[in-house]
Amino acid sequence: MPHPPAQQPISANTDTLVMQVMGHIRDRIANRSLVAGARIPSIRQSAEKMGVSKSTVVDAYDRLVAEGTILSRRGSGFFVAGQTPPLSIAQIAPSLDRAIDPFWVSRQSLSTDDTVLKPGCGWLPPDWLPNEALRRALRQIARGPDKTMTDYATPLGSLALREYLARRMGEHGITPPTGQIMLTESGTQAIDLLCRLLIEPGDTVFVDDPCYFNFHALLHAHRANIIAIPYLADGPDMDAFARAAEENRPRLYVTNSGLHNPTGASLSPVKAHRVLKVCEKHGITIIEDDIFADFETTPAPRLAAFDGLENVVHIGSFSKTLSASVRCGYVATRADWIDKLLDLKIATSFGGGNLSSAIILSVLRDGSYRKHMEHVRQRLARAMTDCATQLGVLGIKPLAPPGAGIFLWTRLPHNMDAAALAHAGLKHNIILAPGNVFSLSKTAGDLMRFNVAQSLDPRLMAFLKMEIDAAAKGS
Amino acid sequence: MPHPPAQQPISANTDTLVMQVMGHIRDRIANRSLVAGARIPSIRQSAEKMGVSKSTVVDAYDRLVAEGTILSRRGSGFFVAGQTPPLSIAQIAPSLDRAIDPFWVSRQSLSTDDTVLKPGCGWLPPDWLPNEALRRALRQIARGPDKTMTDYATPLGSLALREYLARRMGEHGITPPTGQIMLTESGTQAIDLLCRLLIEPGDTVFVDDPCYFNFHALLHAHRANIIAIPYLADGPDMDAFARAAEENRPRLYVTNSGLHNPTGASLSPVKAHRVLKVCEKHGITIIEDDIFADFETTPAPRLAAFDGLENVVHIGSFSKTLSASVRCGYVATRADWIDKLLDLKIATSFGGGNLSSAIILSVLRDGSYRKHMEHVRQRLARAMTDCATQLGVLGIKPLAPPGAGIFLWTRLPHNMDAAALAHAGLKHNIILAPGNVFSLSKTAGDLMRFNVAQSLDPRLMAFLKMEIDAAAKGS
Repeated sequence: MPHPPAQQPISANTDTLVMQVMGHIRDRIANRSLVAGARIPSIRQSAEKMGVSKSTVVDAYDRLVAEGTILSRRGSGFFVAGQTPPLSIAQIAPSLDRAIDPFWVSRQSLSTDDTVLKPGCGWLPPDWLPNEALRRALRQIARGPDKTMTDYATPLGSLALREYLARRMGEHGITPPTGQIMLTESGTQAIDLLCRLLIEPGDTVFVDDPCYFNFHALLHAHRANIIAIPYLADGPDMDAFARAAEENRPRLYVTNSGLHNPTGASLSPVKAHRVLKVCEKHGITIIEDDIFADFETTPAPRLAAFDGLENVVHIGSFSKTLSASVRCGYVATRADWIDKLLDLKIATSFGGGNLSSAIILSVLRDGSYRKHMEHVRQRLARAMTDCATQLGVLGIKPLAPPGAGIFLWTRLPHNMDAAALAHAGLKHNIILAPGNVFSLSKTAGDLMRFNVAQSLDPRLMAFLKMEIDAAAKGS
Repeated sequence: MPHPPAQQPISANTDTLVMQVMGHIRDRIANRSLVAGARIPSIRQSAEKMGVSKSTVVDAYDRLVAEGTILSRRGSGFFVAGQTPPLSIAQIAPSLDRAIDPFWVSRQSLSTDDTVLKPGCGWLPPDWLPNEALRRALRQIARGPDKTMTDYATPLGSLALREYLARRMGEHGITPPTGQIMLTESGTQAIDLLCRLLIEPGDTVFVDDPCYFNFHALLHAHRANIIAIPYLADGPDMDAFARAAEENRPRLYVTNSGLHNPTGASLSPVKAHRVLKVCEKHGITIIEDDIFADFETTPAPRLAAFDGLENVVHIGSFSKTLSASVRCGYVATRADWIDKLLDLKIATSFGGGNLSSAIILSVLRDGSYRKHMEHVRQRLARAMTDCATQLGVLGIKPLAPPGAGIFLWTRLPHNMDAAALAHAGLKHNIILAPGNVFSLSKTAGDLMRFNVAQSLDPRLMAFLKMEIDAAAKGS
């Protein structure tokens, strides 16, 4: 039954208790232990549970009614009002400094226009990509059959592209039949579908520390218990990995074998073997994200090649080497999982189109693609050297000798705080990727990832010099 | 500690008990209450819990070890072996006859080539779509800037397309600012992201009975508790809706307002008002899937227009009217939800590309699009009449007078089983959509949905006549 609002003035102490009761109910609504329409514990129950007087609870409930959080129904008690506030990633994930929140870097990198410098973003500038081959592909498709332009793809996606992918994986010793390759909209969608298939909320998943920051975001969205294993110059710290595997029984390990993001390191054969052994022992499935494959100059071993796609799932996409605009990723895995991934893909995105895969295939088959990648690798090598030199002059040092790929993983001088530097960069229209965005343990506070293809603008170096000079004076 | 295999012969009764214990452990592994590496209850615990002797449990565990389901570790007990079998939709959803499993129709429709007739599929044949405008769009983009071909889209997606969508929604009385519209890869992805945001496993979601079968698949993937409300000629059965809302406190209601799939019905204004009232009262969010909007000849009221996007989320795509190959959908909702949907979109698919939205926008702006849709609507009206006439001759009658759109929802004569007819169709290279695929209550066993744009081939009518003649003789 409804209670009249308390008439008497409330003492400071009572007021605090009332606030506590209100806060408790609001929290339970926010974390959805009480959902819209749910009955709220009776006044007696709440009073007993919280060790306060019934009149305190009466006051708290009345104020919650007044603010519209709960409803009172005559004779039947109190209920959660209207809309339950939706769960957000911010609620799932621990509260983060927005500068080291993975979404901050993603959104900033995706949002900005051509006037903004993006040394913190994870992809090549448009003019590094095979635009002429893409133009040819569009014109070719415009002359082709209707169905490429208007029809759904088959559930697995273009057979011709899957045949190409099978051959390309074969060069790395991975030999799936085409029926075990499924196209997706992106590499991220491939991992997302695998998470839907393989993990439950609360399951433990291993990532590298540091790792690609969107792995954190994706795994938070699946409410995984994320554990990050230190990543060294040749792969994970295997003592830590084996110990954590024994203790935490993870379901998945998500990693890059070649050109690890953000460190640029590559897995050594001996580490590959040890990772596989530990994962086999504990039934840990490995998702090997091979998105940087085509940037390699010396191929790293692929976990999927050793394992024959039993415990290892191999995924990739073309967003780094060919086009981020033409959305196309893929996953190669066991036949029984492909079948279930197909159902999940149809349920959650209905299906793919023919257009993206037709464009990708056309560019891959275009005689110019290998030459394009050769050129990109040379251009990246030069940019890597130039970038390392210019940063070195400022006192920003790579943690390991610069290798292949697009990333340089560096330490700032004077114990500078990379997140603060990223904040400062924003005011100068510069998007940076501070180390702790990649580090679950937040042990990369003075590290910074530079995309060497996006880091050669003099404005960046001028900004860094200014900030470092200021830090040198301060320290 | 490991136990030696039982040496003595086991009586039939003991054997049954051993099998029961084995089955119990296998079930717990299958439903993941025991995961890979987890310790299995001790022999004593299991014996007590299941009311069997310890020696029965010893036998059961030994056999589970022998078959590789569990491992025995010296001195520390029994553990679940290797890989936990992944959860599949088949395990989440009730076991379904594959002919009335939503995935069956989706996969068949998506898998087949041009020689197969697809009266059961949910989209137009490629030659009904604006192929020439699409060719022009591709050629135009091939002459345009690099970034359309190679760069990521901004988080919300093309502003120009969102401005177009805002104007188009305005024609239906829905007036979101462009900042409250987010582009997605598909309408299905839009609903999927909303489910990630708004529901938890076990939350109740209302759908229509019948409804688009992929709603079942998508909601099963989210482990929703799906409740289907009978759908009548002008909207849901409101007495049933209100009663079920009171009893079940659903979080969401997913529906089509105009040209409901599969019935072709449209929501009446009076029903729209009642739906909104009940949903407001109980804090139910409505997802209004407006995918058939452009097929309407007489616009139905839009729930989102009445509600001002407070409780109603409006979604749509271009896969039915423009191209299923160029993947592009959208969602319009409250500003606070858009912000959270953006994070979820980035986490689970990183971002969209510029290409699809550029193609869609180019075709929409092409002077020919309105004429194209006018032509499609006239062509559909003729096909609807022809199809209804031809089916009527065979005794297949629409449940309501044929309206606009692409679907005719019909009853088979002679109490024929639509699922059996669909099975028979497959042998003749004909994909049909039997009623119970759409009906959670499985009360549509003699109903069939025909896509009138895919149903005018004489081979279909010949097949149906043959089957119906046989049924007439049998009945």
